[in-house]
Amino acid sequence: MPRWEPDARARLAEAALHLFEEQGYDATTVEDIARRAGLTKRTFFRYFTDKREVLFGGVYPEGFVDEAVLSAPQSAGPLAAASRGLGALASNIDGQGATAARRIRIVRASPELWERQLIKFTFLAEALVKALRSRGVDEQSAVLAAESGIIALRVATDRWIRGVEGASLRELLEESVEELRAIASSPS
Amino acid sequence: MPRWEPDARARLAEAALHLFEEQGYDATTVEDIARRAGLTKRTFFRYFTDKREVLFGGVYPEGFVDEAVLSAPQSAGPLAAASRGLGALASNIDGQGATAARRIRIVRASPELWERQLIKFTFLAEALVKALRSRGVDEQSAVLAAESGIIALRVATDRWIRGVEGASLRELLEESVEELRAIASSPS
Repeated sequence: MPRWEPDARARLAEAALHLFEEQGYDATTVEDIARRAGLTKRTFFRYFTDKREVLFGGVYPEGFVDEAVLSAPQSAGPLAAASRGLGALASNIDGQGATAARRIRIVRASPELWERQLIKFTFLAEALVKALRSRGVDEQSAVLAAESGIIALRVATDRWIRGVEGASLRELLEESVEELRAIASSPS
Repeated sequence: MPRWEPDARARLAEAALHLFEEQGYDATTVEDIARRAGLTKRTFFRYFTDKREVLFGGVYPEGFVDEAVLSAPQSAGPLAAASRGLGALASNIDGQGATAARRIRIVRASPELWERQLIKFTFLAEALVKALRSRGVDEQSAVLAAESGIIALRVATDRWIRGVEGASLRELLEESVEELRAIASSPS
């Protein structure tokens, strides 16, 4: 069916998400995905290295995260600058709509996939730390700001994928950062 | 050598740490460890399930962490209560002396071991969240306080294993929590 080929990537991704939701990630093979998309395994492997790639490919392009941190106003403290970067990421995910939430829900439900996500967060943290360091933030403050910002994003994401609030991920991230600020100023 | 048997665990652990430092974790076999300790592989497996267990066994007994969170003064906010729990853990590690720092250094240097450590942190976070929840802290604040406390512990541990400051892990944890508070109150 050559006239469908331009859509192959999206069709494969949609077929994969549908099957992961329906029968679970572990039980789904690349063959199942290709069959459901009406394509061949060979075509699948033209777009993705394996079935995990459907969930992780291209979700975290770190380039624009750095840029957002660097373009924060000079007066912004380390947490505010980190939050800018994470806000750019959240907006990017918001822009992917419901598909992104479905993908994250699948990752969250599988210990193996979640483990991989945690490793991706460490790369994200490294990118944030590097960007904060170029703003003149000392190493230790940069690590604390980057990592605590990522926690705020994780908490926001958990709320977002439950979908109860009708809010965007970016709005929930901002709330979550505010809550982190409140906790950190709570009595010691 | 039956008169040495009561020391077998400590001798095996010491032999393992020595070899991990000298030739690397990956290159060291259980056989190497047993030989260096003057014991058999069979004896090794009486004390440890595998070589990774030498590094992770018994490092995080979570029971006393919970207790310390629960016994924090009623006036303590979520971050302060979480820090109490983590402070108890830090004191426990301080009590293990130089061996603990050597162990952590080896874990930090290996991506595979560090990945496992990250998973152990998620168990620690769950224990802290549960304890904070029983203090009446809401779910989201509990997660933010537990996870950001663990980040403060990680930053403190990185400084501690460099050993440059001559401070205890507990002291460095307290400094790190203070720094987190400062960052969270920095301009937005």
